[in-house]
Order: sequence, then C-alpha cells, then structure tokens
Amino acid sequence: MFVAFQGEPGAYSEAALFEHYGSNVQSLPCLSFDDVFEAVNTGKAEEGLIPIENSLAGSIHRNYDLLLQNSLIVIGEHFLSVHHCLIGLPNSEIGRIQRVISHPQALAQCEGSLRRLGLVSEAVYDTAGSVKILQQRSDPTLAAVASRRAANLYKMKILLENIEDNPANFTRFLAIRPPTEKDHQDSRVPYKTSIVFALNNQPGALFKALSVFALRDIDLTKIESRPLAGKPWEYFFYIDFAGSIEEVKCSRALDHLKEYASFFRILGSYPRSQMPSEKP
Amino acid sequence: MFVAFQGEPGAYSEAALFEHYGSNVQSLPCLSFDDVFEAVNTGKAEEGLIPIENSLAGSIHRNYDLLLQNSLIVIGEHFLSVHHCLIGLPNSEIGRIQRVISHPQALAQCEGSLRRLGLVSEAVYDTAGSVKILQQRSDPTLAAVASRRAANLYKMKILLENIEDNPANFTRFLAIRPPTEKDHQDSRVPYKTSIVFALNNQPGALFKALSVFALRDIDLTKIESRPLAGKPWEYFFYIDFAGSIEEVKCSRALDHLKEYASFFRILGSYPRSQMPSEKP
Repeated sequence: MFVAFQGEPGAYSEAALFEHYGSNVQSLPCLSFDDVFEAVNTGKAEEGLIPIENSLAGSIHRNYDLLLQNSLIVIGEHFLSVHHCLIGLPNSEIGRIQRVISHPQALAQCEGSLRRLGLVSEAVYDTAGSVKILQQRSDPTLAAVASRRAANLYKMKILLENIEDNPANFTRFLAIRPPTEKDHQDSRVPYKTSIVFALNNQPGALFKALSVFALRDIDLTKIESRPLAGKPWEYFFYIDFAGSIEEVKCSRALDHLKEYASFFRILGSYPRSQMPSEKP
Repeated sequence: MFVAFQGEPGAYSEAALFEHYGSNVQSLPCLSFDDVFEAVNTGKAEEGLIPIENSLAGSIHRNYDLLLQNSLIVIGEHFLSVHHCLIGLPNSEIGRIQRVISHPQALAQCEGSLRRLGLVSEAVYDTAGSVKILQQRSDPTLAAVASRRAANLYKMKILLENIEDNPANFTRFLAIRPPTEKDHQDSRVPYKTSIVFALNNQPGALFKALSVFALRDIDLTKIESRPLAGKPWEYFFYIDFAGSIEEVKCSRALDHLKEYASFFRILGSYPRSQMPSEKP
C-alpha cells in the first residue's frame, strides 16, 4: 500500500505516516500538499496523510481548503510529538556552527535555543530538505533543524536533541482517501467527526449553529474559519466534534445544523486517536 | 506623524496607509510585522497599520499573535481593494515575458491569469520587493506582480492590470498605537470592538461565550482561533463585534463573557470603516 505525504524522505509527515500505518507501507513523497491530494485522487497512492494543525503554530490552512476542494474523506487522525534536532556534518562540532537552516516553522519553534547558541537562521522550504542541503553544501559551520530520522537518513550528525522551546509540540495529521461503499464503524471505540459548513450571514448565525451541539452535550474539539472566496467576510466553518455520525444524537445534531446551513458537508467520521506523551 | 507598515515602499500596506491617513503622513517601511510593533512600541512611529485579513487568503495569524503579545491598542480599521498588475521593464512587452516573481499570496491570487499566459512563477518575499528585484535583474523576460503604485515608484511598465482571478479581493488593516488616556468616542458613528479571550476547556464553552453576544443581538463580524502555547488544542479566541464598549449592551456582554473566560482583553474599540467598491 502506498501512502502519500508532503516533504522529502525524513520529513515529520513521513515519521507520522510510519507511526500511523506501521512500517510495512510505502511512503510516497510529494512536493506540495496539492500534490498529496492529487496522488490520492489519481490512485498513485491509496491514502494520504496530511498535517492539519500544530499545537504551537496553529492550523495548516491550505489543507483545510484542499479538503473542501477535493472529494476525499477523512478516515483517521494521528498525533505526532515533534522533537527537533540540531544536525551537522559527520565531522562537525557544536562549537563550529555559525548558521542554521530549516523550514521557517521549525526555526520559529527553536528560536530561543538558537538565540542562546548565537546562530544565524536562514529559511529553506522543508525540514528534511534542510538536511539534504546541509549534505550538499558540505559546510562544517552550517547546521540544519530537523528530525532524528532525517539526520540518520542523510547520515548526518546529531549535535543537540530536543531543541524546541516548548516541549508541548504536537502535530495532528489526517488520513485521507477516496470515499468507498459505506464503511463499517467500530462502535467499541470513540469516534470523532469533521464537518464543514457555511451560514447565512445574519446576527447570531454561528451561535445557532453551535447550539445544535451544545444542546445535545456534544463536545467540539476544534473550530476553524476560512474565507468564502467571492463573498468577502463570509466564512466556511470547519468543526471537529467527539462522536460518530452513526450515533443518534450526532446525526440529529447534523440534521439540525442543516436547517441553518447554506452549505454542509461531512468530511469524515473516524476513530479518535490518543495523544502521545510530551516526553521524547 | 510617522506610521509604520511592513514591506518595501510601494507595498499594498503603504497604499492602505495613505488611503487611511491621507498623504501628509510619513510612511515608515519595516522588514517584518514584528518590526512594525517594535517601531510603535519604541516611538519611532506614532502609529502602525497592519494587515489582519484578506478576503481570499484569510487571516494573517502572525498579527493576531502580535496583538496579544504587545500592549498596543486598535484604534481604527481600513479596507483596501487589492488589484494586481503584471509589471515588466520599461522596454519589455507582454509577449516576451516567461517568468514572474512576487509574494506567494499575490501569485496564488493570480494563478489562473498566470497559467493562461503560460508563465512560470517564482516566490519572493514581498510584492513591492519583487518590482525592486525586477529592476535590479534587468531581465526583459521577467515580470513582477504588484500594485500600480509599486510599478510607478520603480519606473517600471504595467503590462496588464487587474490580473487577480477574483475581483472581490480586499484586505482589512488595523491601525495600532500605544494606549493613552481614555479616548473620547464619537457616538454619532458606528463602532466595532476587537477582543481576545480564552475559555476553560469544557463542553459547550464556546457556545456559552457566544451566547453573551447572541442574547443581546450583538452582531459578530469575525471569529478567529489561535493556539494557546503549552496547552495543546486549547485556544485564544479573537472576536470582532459591531458596537462600542461605551454602549451599555456591549459592556454588559463583556462583563458576562468574563464570567466564562480564563483570560480576557479588549484589543480596541474604534469607528467602523466602509468597504470600498470592487471596481478598480
């Protein structure tokens, strides 16, 4: 089975992929999030795994937009504990490092550590990609910020581990694939459901929409709004809630929501994942 | 009076600045949004003007985070109608252009036009900056995507106007400055208020928070959530609502909200701005 992810081999997305699917799947690296959706749409990969939110940096909005633009469904979630390493050439030492490259997000998450080390940061397109660049440039004063896995893959040296400023650094991933015949849900495990809807622009509209959950004691785990193109300052709302669409109170809440919604779609209903521990 | 903005001279932010403040103010270009806040904090500029949301691309999250991290207040808003030009060297022609540079956001907003023209896109750090690069590289097969003002400022040629795919392209800006003695509010004009709060993580918490507005018929114009660092999957909520903190029903709503909030701050209460027409 092929699973598509965005990034170079050794990317955090690929680490999440092997954690979620096990080591027997084939990971398919894609240049962009758009390419991950395309790979799954065209059947080059059976499934895709996309980051949707980081606990420090927030939502990955492009993937919210792509979920809406494509007709793939969400069939699972995965939480990855993100730990950054400072990586140098095999013959380098921490004292020689002057400059550091990585994805802007990773650099931002290690800002305090890098400042204390007196290193100059430079943004590149990808975390694992920064290790590839390090290897190519062969400069012993240069370091990259990426995963332990990326360091091992490119045979580079880990100079420091867990250099992130905040240890509570998690990324939530969604597993996506084309919709098939009705999936059998396992009623023994807790589910989560992801939906997207738009509302008629009137006072109290969002309050009414949230009431369908609150009045049934359904717990929302996330709300996100994205612009509705062509209608300035109107929004698509993305909501995740605890529960399965096969539970009566959830299906009633969604029927109730449709009374208010000008647009409504279920993105997926899938088993809830456990959060890993913060410890590396 | 000095007003700080992010970008090179000729940036959309600078255009918004002159529209909002008139042409008699001095614009102070800053490298980053952080630098705009810093310039206002240190008094290098009396005020700053920051983009907070684009009607196609969504919120500018860094500025939400900076509003919370700094103690500046919001004293006004401005809507800019965004129109992109394809800009070449003075001696260039549209038929010669092969590649185009601009900020990724501007390139994304013109994706359809650029595809029809068969141009290869390359991301750079800034829209007005892309015109500066065009001037420096002096390559007649290269074009930039930026404002009419940026083209004029760098004495470059406008090859095509209004190349954005969606004409409903607006950016909302906020004017910020340090808090002073209680400002006098003008009760003859409609106001808007921006707040940020956090909630105890329990079922129905957001519903209760929104009820304080809905039960008083106060219209929400925007809700945004940002991660609460160190508490994975808990959020700061940013809300804009129609009304002034000097109106009784609004101040009662905020007192009511404080009963539920674990954190609460008023970012500002300021006169509402008019949206410009979509026409260039």
